[in-house]
Amino acid sequence: RLLLPDAARAGLPLARPATAHKYSVGTLLAVAGSRQYGGAATLVALGARSGGPGMLYLALPESLADRVAARLPEAIVHPCPQAENGALADLPGVDLEKFDAVVCGPGLGKAEQALVLRLAREAAGALVLDADGLNLIAGQLEVLAQRAAPTVLTPHPGEFKRLFPDIALADRQGAARTAALRSHAWIVLKGARTVVASPSGQVWVNPGGSPALARGGSGDVLAGLLGALLAQCENPEPAVLGAVWWHAAAGEWLAARHTVLGVDAETLALGLLPFLAADGP
Amino acid sequence: RLLLPDAARAGLPLARPATAHKYSVGTLLAVAGSRQYGGAATLVALGARSGGPGMLYLALPESLADRVAARLPEAIVHPCPQAENGALADLPGVDLEKFDAVVCGPGLGKAEQALVLRLAREAAGALVLDADGLNLIAGQLEVLAQRAAPTVLTPHPGEFKRLFPDIALADRQGAARTAALRSHAWIVLKGARTVVASPSGQVWVNPGGSPALARGGSGDVLAGLLGALLAQCENPEPAVLGAVWWHAAAGEWLAARHTVLGVDAETLALGLLPFLAADGP
Amino acid sequence: RLLLPDAARAGLPLARPATAHKYSVGTLLAVAGSRQYGGAATLVALGARSGGPGMLYLALPESLADRVAARLPEAIVHPCPQAENGALADLPGVDLEKFDAVVCGPGLGKAEQALVLRLAREAAGALVLDADGLNLIAGQLEVLAQRAAPTVLTPHPGEFKRLFPDIALADRQGAARTAALRSHAWIVLKGARTVVASPSGQVWVNPGGSPALARGGSGDVLAGLLGALLAQCENPEPAVLGAVWWHAAAGEWLAARHTVLGVDAETLALGLLPFLAADGP
Amino acid sequence: RLLLPDAARAGLPLARPATAHKYSVGTLLAVAGSRQYGGAATLVALGARSGGPGMLYLALPESLADRVAARLPEAIVHPCPQAENGALADLPGVDLEKFDAVVCGPGLGKAEQALVLRLAREAAGALVLDADGLNLIAGQLEVLAQRAAPTVLTPHPGEFKRLFPDIALADRQGAARTAALRSHAWIVLKGARTVVASPSGQVWVNPGGSPALARGGSGDVLAGLLGALLAQCENPEPAVLGAVWWHAAAGEWLAARHTVLGVDAETLALGLLPFLAADGP
Repeated sequence: RLLLPDAARAGLPLARPATAHKYSVGTLLAVAGSRQYGGAATLVALGARSGGPGMLYLALPESLADRVAARLPEAIVHPCPQAENGALADLPGVDLEKFDAVVCGPGLGKAEQALVLRLAREAAGALVLDADGLNLIAGQLEVLAQRAAPTVLTPHPGEFKRLFPDIALADRQGAARTAALRSHAWIVLKGARTVVASPSGQVWVNPGGSPALARGGSGDVLAGLLGALLAQCENPEPAVLGAVWWHAAAGEWLAARHTVLGVDAETLALGLLPFLAADGP
Repeated sequence: RLLLPDAARAGLPLARPATAHKYSVGTLLAVAGSRQYGGAATLVALGARSGGPGMLYLALPESLADRVAARLPEAIVHPCPQAENGALADLPGVDLEKFDAVVCGPGLGKAEQALVLRLAREAAGALVLDADGLNLIAGQLEVLAQRAAPTVLTPHPGEFKRLFPDIALADRQGAARTAALRSHAWIVLKGARTVVASPSGQVWVNPGGSPALARGGSGDVLAGLLGALLAQCENPEPAVLGAVWWHAAAGEWLAARHTVLGVDAETLALGLLPFLAADGP
Repeated sequence: RLLLPDAARAGLPLARPATAHKYSVGTLLAVAGSRQYGGAATLVALGARSGGPGMLYLALPESLADRVAARLPEAIVHPCPQAENGALADLPGVDLEKFDAVVCGPGLGKAEQALVLRLAREAAGALVLDADGLNLIAGQLEVLAQRAAPTVLTPHPGEFKRLFPDIALADRQGAARTAALRSHAWIVLKGARTVVASPSGQVWVNPGGSPALARGGSGDVLAGLLGALLAQCENPEPAVLGAVWWHAAAGEWLAARHTVLGVDAETLALGLLPFLAADGP
Repeated sequence: RLLLPDAARAGLPLARPATAHKYSVGTLLAVAGSRQYGGAATLVALGARSGGPGMLYLALPESLADRVAARLPEAIVHPCPQAENGALADLPGVDLEKFDAVVCGPGLGKAEQALVLRLAREAAGALVLDADGLNLIAGQLEVLAQRAAPTVLTPHPGEFKRLFPDIALADRQGAARTAALRSHAWIVLKGARTVVASPSGQVWVNPGGSPALARGGSGDVLAGLLGALLAQCENPEPAVLGAVWWHAAAGEWLAARHTVLGVDAETLALGLLPFLAADGP
C-alpha cells in the first residue's frame, strides 16, 4: 500500500518533445451529457482541456452541441442523435479506432447500455467510465476483460456498491484491489482519501484532497482529466495516479485561495493549470 | 437589538468536515426567472453557487434553461412549463422533499400564487421568498405558520408594505420584529442598514453595506446566497445573519476596488468569494 | 475654449448618498442593435453598465434579446418586433416616461426614422443619439428644440457632415459650437481631439485619447457610458464631460497595458472601471 | 537564410498615427467555419482581434453566426448560406473590394473549391489561405499568380504535401523557397522551427516556439493574426514575419506560465496581447 503524491506529482506536467504535433500528443474523445444533465458535458470537457491533449473531440446529444462548442472553441463537437428521454442514442460517424483515449459517462442519464458496451468493445485506446457510464456497465463487467487497452473505473462508494455488490467497503483498499483484480480495470474509489488499485493488484492511497471538492460536478472534471492524461501516456500508471493527485491537490490549493465554499466544479476545472504552474517546477 | 457583523462573520466560511460528500453539504433548489426577467435567474444562481452548496438545482421557465445552464455548468437545470405570459407555470418532476433549502422569487414576474403556496406547503427544507415571491405570498402569510422548517422573507420597504400594510415602517427594527412574530418567518428588511428579525423576536441591525449595492439584481444575489447557507446549516440563525453580513460587506469591499459605480449585480455575485477569502479565515 | 480633463475627472466617480436605492440612481434605456449589427447592442450595454446606473433596460430586436441577456444578467431586456430588414421596428410596452436617460443608435441599421423621432418627442429624460440614430435624425433636427430634457449628439466627422452639411469642419471647435447652438443639443464631435459643445455655446477640447481607440465599437461604448452618467446627473455638463474624458483616458491607460493593438471595444468597455479605480480616489 | 525573431519583433506592436480612425487601420474579413468545425471560426476571429484591426468582419455559415457574434461583439458578422453538408456555400452581399485583407480556411470543411477561387480572384487586399482553404486551392495554384495583392499560404507538412506533391520536404527551407517561387505566394511552413519564404525567394527560420502549441486550433489563431497584421501593413514582410514570431513567442511565454499542457488554442489567442505587452517596449 503506497502513498500516492510524490511519484504522481513527479510525472506532471507530462513531458513533450520539441517535435510534438497535434496528432502526436493524444487524441481524446469524451462521450457525455444528456438533455437533463448538460453541464456535465461542459465540465468533463473543461477537465479534459486542462490535461493538454493534442486533439479534443466531444460526442454529445444534439441539444447540447452548440452550448458546449461555444464554451470550448478548440474542441471538435459531434452532435449525436438524442433519444426521447434526452439521452445520447448513438455515435454515428464516430470512428472509435482513432482515439488514444475515450471518457464516457458524466451526465449520460438514462442512455442505453448498448452504448457503453460498444465503447468497451470497440474503443481501441484507453477507456474511462464514470458516473452513469458506471451504472450502465454494471452487470456486464466481463466485457472489460476482453479489452487490450487500459480501462479505468471511477466510482464513488454508492457507484462501487452497484458495480460490486458483494465486495464490502469497510476495507476500502482491499475492496478496490479485489474489484480491480476481478474487473481487469483500474479502480479509482473516490472519497475523502481516494484509493487507486491497478488490475495487477497494486494499491495506492491519496492522503490529500479537500472537503471543498464535495460539490456536484467535481467528479466530471476528474474524468476528463484522466482521459486527457491517458491519451498522452503509453503507460496508464502515471496517467491515473497523476490525474488523481492533480485533481485533489488542486482542490486543496483552491480551497486555500477561495475558501472551502469556493471550489465549485467550474472553478476547479479552471484552476487545475494555475495550480500546477504555481506548484512548480 | 444587536449589531450583526462580528457574530455573523465568525460563522463564515461554514466549517465542513473532511468526510463531506456532495449530498451531505446542502442540496439547494432555486425557482426563479420568467421570459421578461431572465437575468434574475442567473443572478440568484450565481449567488447560490458562491455560498458553496453541495448540489445546486434550478427550476426555470423553459425559455431560460439553456442560457442559465450554459453559464453554470455545475447546476442541474429543470426546464419547466412556461405560461403564455412568460411566467413559470408549474414544477413537474421536482421532488420538493429532497431539498435542504428552496429559494423562490427573483424575476418570477406574474406567476400564479398557487406556485408559491405549493412551495410553502411542500418544501421540506428552509424556504427563502424574495421579490415576486413576496408579492405572490402577500395576503396568504398564514400558510407560513404551518411550516416545520424555517422561512425567510427578504422585502425591501416597498415589498414590506405590500406584505404588512398595517405595520408602520418609521421604526424599521420594530416593524421587522412585529412582522417576524406575526408571520413566523425570519424577516430581512433591506435598505441602507438592513434589519434582521427572527420569528422569536430577536432583532439585529447590519451597520455595513454600500450605496454601490443600489443596483437592479443585488437582491437576487442575496436571495441565492441565503438559500445556499440555509441549505448547509441546521440552525437558520448563522445562515441568515451570515448571508446578510457577507453580501453587504462584499459590496463595501468591491466598491473600494471598483468605485461606487462598479458593483453591478454580476460583479457582486462573482466577488463574494474573493472578498471572503481576502477577509481572512 | 476650455481643456476638458481636470473638471471632468473631478466629478467621477459620481457621488452617491448612503441611502441610495436602485430607483434613485438612474434608470437608463438603451435602444440598439439589428440583426446585422448585433454586437453594437452588447457594447452599448457594457458601456452603460460601467457607468453604474441603478437600473438598466435594453430594447432590442427580438433576434438579439437572448444573446445580450445572457451577457448582462443585471439588465432587463425588452425583445422588440424586428422588421424584414432586421431592424428594430417598434417599442411596444416601453414606457418612455420612466427613464432618466435613453441612448439610441448603435447598430440600429436601417430602422425607420419614426422610431427616432418618437424617442426625441416622448423620452422624458436625457437622450443620447449616436451612430445610426444620428443618420435617422438627419434632416429632422428641429424636433430637438422641443425637448425639455438634454439631448446629446455624438457624431464622428462623417456623421457630422450628414447632420450639418453646411457647417465646415475645418474649424472643429467652431463647427461643434455652431451645431450645438442650432440644434439645441450637446455636440460630441469625435476624433483625435474630441470637441464638446453645449447648447449654450460653451466649447471644450479633450486633449487625451489614443489611436488604440480607432476600432469598430469604441463609439458604442461611449454612447452607453454617456447615457449611464446622464441618467444619474441632474446637470448634463458633468455627465457629458465626464463620459468623454473617462472613455478617452481609459483608452490611453489600456493602450499602455495592452499595446496600441489591444484595445478592442469589449476590452475598452470592461476596462472603464479598472481604470477609474486605479486612477483614484 | 535568416533567423526571424529580432526584425520581426522590432515591428510590433505596429505603430499607429495619432489621427488613426477605424477605417484607416485595417479592414479585415475572415471566412471560416462549418457546422462540423465551428470552433475554428471563433479561434480565427480571436486571433484576428488580437492583431488590432480597425474593423473586423466575419463571413460564417449561418448556423455559427449567433455563437461567434456572442463571443466577439466588436465583429460584424455576415451569416452566409450553408450547404447540406454544413459548409459555407456562398458569400452574398460581401464586397470583396473593401477589405485590406481576407483570411480564409479554418474549419471550412467540405466547401466548394469555387469559394476559394473566387476569393483568390476577387479579394482586392492580401489573402491568407489556411487549413481547408489550402486543401481547396490545391491543384489551382496558378490562380495566385494573377493576384496583385500578397497571398500567404500556411501549410503544416501534410498540407504542404497536398499542395506541392513533387517538392521534397527533407530540406524544409529549400522546399518552402521552391514553393514560394512557384506559387507567387508567401509560404509559412509550420512545424517545430517554422520556415517562412517570400515570393522573391527569401527564407527565414523561426527558432522559437513550443511543443505546447501542438494543439488543435493553434493554427487557426495564427491565420487570424496574420490577416490582422496584413490588413494594417502596406508591406507584407513585417506582417508575415511579425505574426509568425508573435504566435510562437507567445506560445513559449504561455507555456512557462501555464505549463506545456496549458496552452489550448483559446488560451493562446487570449494570451497574445498580454505577452506582447509584457515583452515591452
